[in-house]
Amino acid sequence: MTANSAFVRATRGDDVPHVPVWFMRQAGRSLPEYRSLREGLSMLDTCQRPELIVEITMQPVRRYGVDAAILYSDIMVPLMAVGVDLDIVPNVGPVIASPVKTLADLAPLRPLEASDVPYVTSAVRDLVTVLGKTPLVGFAGAPFTLASYLVEGGPSKDHAATKALMHGSPDLWHALLSRLAVISAAFLRVQIEAGVSAVQLFDSWSGTLAPSDYQEFVAPHTRAVFTALADLDVPRIHFGVGTGELLGLMAGTGPDVMGVDWRVPLHEASRRVGGRPVQGNLDPAILLAPWPVVEEQARRVLASGRRGSGHIFNLGHGVLPQTDPDQLARLTEYVHNWKP
Amino acid sequence: MTANSAFVRATRGDDVPHVPVWFMRQAGRSLPEYRSLREGLSMLDTCQRPELIVEITMQPVRRYGVDAAILYSDIMVPLMAVGVDLDIVPNVGPVIASPVKTLADLAPLRPLEASDVPYVTSAVRDLVTVLGKTPLVGFAGAPFTLASYLVEGGPSKDHAATKALMHGSPDLWHALLSRLAVISAAFLRVQIEAGVSAVQLFDSWSGTLAPSDYQEFVAPHTRAVFTALADLDVPRIHFGVGTGELLGLMAGTGPDVMGVDWRVPLHEASRRVGGRPVQGNLDPAILLAPWPVVEEQARRVLASGRRGSGHIFNLGHGVLPQTDPDQLARLTEYVHNWKP
Repeated sequence: MTANSAFVRATRGDDVPHVPVWFMRQAGRSLPEYRSLREGLSMLDTCQRPELIVEITMQPVRRYGVDAAILYSDIMVPLMAVGVDLDIVPNVGPVIASPVKTLADLAPLRPLEASDVPYVTSAVRDLVTVLGKTPLVGFAGAPFTLASYLVEGGPSKDHAATKALMHGSPDLWHALLSRLAVISAAFLRVQIEAGVSAVQLFDSWSGTLAPSDYQEFVAPHTRAVFTALADLDVPRIHFGVGTGELLGLMAGTGPDVMGVDWRVPLHEASRRVGGRPVQGNLDPAILLAPWPVVEEQARRVLASGRRGSGHIFNLGHGVLPQTDPDQLARLTEYVHNWKP
Repeated sequence: MTANSAFVRATRGDDVPHVPVWFMRQAGRSLPEYRSLREGLSMLDTCQRPELIVEITMQPVRRYGVDAAILYSDIMVPLMAVGVDLDIVPNVGPVIASPVKTLADLAPLRPLEASDVPYVTSAVRDLVTVLGKTPLVGFAGAPFTLASYLVEGGPSKDHAATKALMHGSPDLWHALLSRLAVISAAFLRVQIEAGVSAVQLFDSWSGTLAPSDYQEFVAPHTRAVFTALADLDVPRIHFGVGTGELLGLMAGTGPDVMGVDWRVPLHEASRRVGGRPVQGNLDPAILLAPWPVVEEQARRVLASGRRGSGHIFNLGHGVLPQTDPDQLARLTEYVHNWKP
């Protein structure tokens, strides 16, 4: 039902009636209806209740009329589901009870089964019915980004412990990322089998790495995730922040579409990823400026995206919590009406 | 006395007997002798006591035998000196009492006079005597990075308020950065007149900007700083983190040497900055790995640096507080003994 949607067509580089648009973190803290629904509920509890997943996923679709929904979940959900002791702490992020230091610490990272995340299967099935012709995007965290939380014990500015382990204990590092690749791929497969129309693999923090480190310590494991999904005919998007120097290497791991942050103009990004379709890349902070600024910057993004071969409009990172939803509504309308 | 030092020669792209090396934040929290000296003293108090500035600046020079000392100070010192109400909070960073929101908030940002920072003049004079043939590097924060603290009120992950003000109130933005450029240039001039052999302008957070924003809202003000120093025959280094996409634009503001973080190999950085000498760029996190890893990565940096025209070895960002000083001692020796 979604194969002919503007979003899915754009992931293949096919002609589209309008540039499709959705927003990373379109569901979440910027929406008052989300904040009121979440009152008194933890993030991880919310992610395990299918009726809430459906409602939260639908909120921005109803509000904005975006071209794709993105499943409400968190990159830490599959780790929690296999038994890693973790929490998502408000205003902090994921916190791991026992950070990974030795091979023994990998024991909890067993392969994920669909039965570990029944709430995801259930929510995706319901969403696909409700969404009809609007595609649903599933997602997972990429091995490096998941590993960074497991090693650091939480969010990090410099990822120093992660890099020290990567270089100092390469066997442990590769064992860790191999296990995470299996979990990420399985989590995406569950979502695809339940009916999502596309998936996005978030390697949010890969941009912290030197290209040589990325190539040696990360790319093989990201590639393993994409390869594990190769039998499924579903477009795969890949994204990280600050990845200007890595775009070619990341594209080489096998995604169909590359997400790009605001630091690289889309036509240049398109060149770096070998002509694949690109997704992005308005700086989310721009949405805090008055509308004429948003319009001007969105026009630039659209003009630059047009010079590649396939463009899905998005932000260059997630919607900031302080964003006025009316700006996103207006932006969605602007993108839909934009003509080259 | 320092004009023929390896460091100063390298800033001009001249032949050097060995690759010169120093480390951003070589003076500071990674050194036990620094931590014990700082006990019970605030950062800003310490920065105003010439005898402490001298001692802290000298600590890493004595320990490592690096090719340059860097003045112990903070980019917020000149703002404090003109009367901005701010503090540097341990484990947080600079905190501004009244963030900039309107033109009226610019009133405290008057031009800096040498008499506002007598402790800097005094410390630099004493250091130059003690250091002899070892060059002393002075420094200041660039207008954008200073503005980001003044607008956000403290450190920021996304610099959203800064970007919103930049785009939403461009007149206020340019007025703010013009004033900061005057202060930065004056702070550097004080240091140069007191005897530093080179200066480094830190635009630490400029890498958060899209190139078009950098060009429109930042480059003219950084250029004003370098232009204000053009009558002084002192090498000027410029540096920011995550600036791969900006290197050419930053080099275009007028520095003699470009600092580079670890994300761009030096030979590629050298190309992007039009063949200027480059400074960098070992990932500071590498120093947390065992020595053979440090050696291997340092060798790569040196080999890449050799392919440009002038290389000062440094890290790609400041020394991390948890770094073992023995690693830096060994690294200094390794760089000094390295032969192409």
